[in-house]
Amino acid sequence: MVNVQALKPETARNKDSAHEADHPTSLVALFGADQPLRLDCGVDLAPFQIAYQTYGTLNADRSNAILVCHALTGDQHVGNPHPVTGKPGWWNTLLGPGKALDTDRYFVICSNVLGSRMGTTGPASTNPATGKLWGLDFPVITIPDMVRAQAMLIDRLGIDTLFAVVGGSMGGMQTLQWSTAYPKRVFSALAVACSTRHSAQNIAFHELGRQAVMADPDWHGGRYFEEGSYPHRGLGVARMAAHITYLSDAALHRKFGRRMQDRDLPTFSFDADFQVESYLRYQGSSFVERFDANSYLYLTRAMDYFDVAADHNGVLAEAYRGTQTRFCVVSFTSDWLFPTTESRATVHALNAGGARVSFAEIETDKGHDAFLLDVPEFIDISRAFLESAGAVRGLIAEK
Amino acid sequence: MVNVQALKPETARNKDSAHEADHPTSLVALFGADQPLRLDCGVDLAPFQIAYQTYGTLNADRSNAILVCHALTGDQHVGNPHPVTGKPGWWNTLLGPGKALDTDRYFVICSNVLGSRMGTTGPASTNPATGKLWGLDFPVITIPDMVRAQAMLIDRLGIDTLFAVVGGSMGGMQTLQWSTAYPKRVFSALAVACSTRHSAQNIAFHELGRQAVMADPDWHGGRYFEEGSYPHRGLGVARMAAHITYLSDAALHRKFGRRMQDRDLPTFSFDADFQVESYLRYQGSSFVERFDANSYLYLTRAMDYFDVAADHNGVLAEAYRGTQTRFCVVSFTSDWLFPTTESRATVHALNAGGARVSFAEIETDKGHDAFLLDVPEFIDISRAFLESAGAVRGLIAEK
Repeated sequence: MVNVQALKPETARNKDSAHEADHPTSLVALFGADQPLRLDCGVDLAPFQIAYQTYGTLNADRSNAILVCHALTGDQHVGNPHPVTGKPGWWNTLLGPGKALDTDRYFVICSNVLGSRMGTTGPASTNPATGKLWGLDFPVITIPDMVRAQAMLIDRLGIDTLFAVVGGSMGGMQTLQWSTAYPKRVFSALAVACSTRHSAQNIAFHELGRQAVMADPDWHGGRYFEEGSYPHRGLGVARMAAHITYLSDAALHRKFGRRMQDRDLPTFSFDADFQVESYLRYQGSSFVERFDANSYLYLTRAMDYFDVAADHNGVLAEAYRGTQTRFCVVSFTSDWLFPTTESRATVHALNAGGARVSFAEIETDKGHDAFLLDVPEFIDISRAFLESAGAVRGLIAEK
Repeated sequence: MVNVQALKPETARNKDSAHEADHPTSLVALFGADQPLRLDCGVDLAPFQIAYQTYGTLNADRSNAILVCHALTGDQHVGNPHPVTGKPGWWNTLLGPGKALDTDRYFVICSNVLGSRMGTTGPASTNPATGKLWGLDFPVITIPDMVRAQAMLIDRLGIDTLFAVVGGSMGGMQTLQWSTAYPKRVFSALAVACSTRHSAQNIAFHELGRQAVMADPDWHGGRYFEEGSYPHRGLGVARMAAHITYLSDAALHRKFGRRMQDRDLPTFSFDADFQVESYLRYQGSSFVERFDANSYLYLTRAMDYFDVAADHNGVLAEAYRGTQTRFCVVSFTSDWLFPTTESRATVHALNAGGARVSFAEIETDKGHDAFLLDVPEFIDISRAFLESAGAVRGLIAEK
């Protein structure tokens, strides 16, 4: 019998993580029945809550606020240890005193997106109308819905205009949506490794991930908590697929090549002979512990639906016509999920709309993940863009 | 409750397909206990059988035989309707009277690879020692094992030297293996959309597919037939993943873009709103009916293990040193599974080894699948290469 190693099942979902959905280790803004969130699908969501973190101090003019928008598998813990995993803030390379997102100068806000599972209302939250978890009763949401919720939070914080909206990947989508939905409230926008619409290939990869989750009998039509199960295998497979797309062929080759895992010769089995197999299995298993399977369905769906031009008769430039926002668009050469061609299309539309826009394509073999990694050129460009905008905004003395 | 459409379960595996494993609609070469196949894992496989198809007539000199090697999901039915699906031969673009693989001139042989499920011994075959299906008791095989089995078939047919070995993708790997294992038996070799070793990214995609299969409870550790089940969902997800890699971003955009399926507006559900989703689901479901889940594990594993240089102290050129074989290597610009860089590495090694080699990179947006499609430039190059080699071989009057 050939030796087999499949993804390890977990007996129960991480309890800390489950707790975070309703009772997050974060600041929480509650919105009551009188403040519904109008969703694109037509549903008024109320009540609901937004969990968020802040760093630095809001100045007297309320003019130094930066909203950081997180990616699909990120959350609001951009600059502090994660309450469930204990890992450092996911953008520690960029955020902190003296860094690009300089907490000595700026007031940085990061909120958990709608549909996520770290304290903002989503399928893993309790539906107050039933006392049960929302599960698939949660309405399907969009990137504009996420941004509309964030705008309600920014209102609640008494901030009229954000100095900057910043984000990569799905966070970049939110940044681009902020800029078209609330152009006067966004002084500057830094959109990294993203696009104004999801490509057919990206929809295909997301659909693959969703099918992997829904194919797992432990998913139980989204009612896994009620059934006392968890679709760890399906979500693990979905994560493995996504993780491959976050890296580049070159990065995988550099990191792993065809090197064997703790052995010199093949075992002639389905064991993880190659390091890259072992790595992927780990990525799949560890992700399952910190994420929610239904949230994964909802957030990937929101990205798939994203198409800024669609609301402007298919003309992207119209979405940004006459904008006063200062834009910086960044792509990475080896990012094949959001390739430079996508960023160029965004830049062309911004130019056509008359926007101030700078664009940088950064040479790296780190793939889409580069926006989360220590890539000095990216960090320098982010800092320079925010400093330049900060000088115009009067936040920084001009050099 | 959000509308959900998951991959449709099939109640039973296609019975015709199951029958083909032991009793193929093909010619069969039986190898008895006295003719074991020595496998790389150290096992002597005996007895075993090879199912194959032939087209055209072997000449008196036995000098006009072409061996076509099929890809991962292909089989021996290269030029006739498939006995299970009824679909036309998978390389009808290339094979037939007057075509590149000219059945008026050449005797074309295509055998089902070892480990497959269309009549050559594999995990879906009955193990004569137990009377049960092999399943995961079948030894893990390699590309060199497949080629060694094919050489036994060629011996059986009384053919000393093949006029040509031809194949794409996994078939191209076999072609390159034939050329190094039996250099004097291969007059010419046409290796398309392939590589002498599987990249880390390709191993990663295969591991994803295997985990999807093994995560399906209906897989039952490979004993699904005994359990009366079939891992249709896991294999469907694996196929969806693989299918994305067979196409290109550009091809998906051209074929589907962001077009909706039979609707104008999003349904705000997990239904297949986009055409690309519907297409992928169909690809997943239809594949499941004609393939065997365990075979998928074995054949992907064989590809992962493939590394010609590894048997030559890591020096690929040594594998082809002094060869007299005429080579033609073909790649496609949009093939990201076996990109042109891989083919160039093969060509450089062949050059360094002193081989006669021509190389063509064909401009197309059809991705890896291009080798199976009607791509006129590829068809013309294949014909020209075989005609040129045929003239030297004395099969065709020189022009």
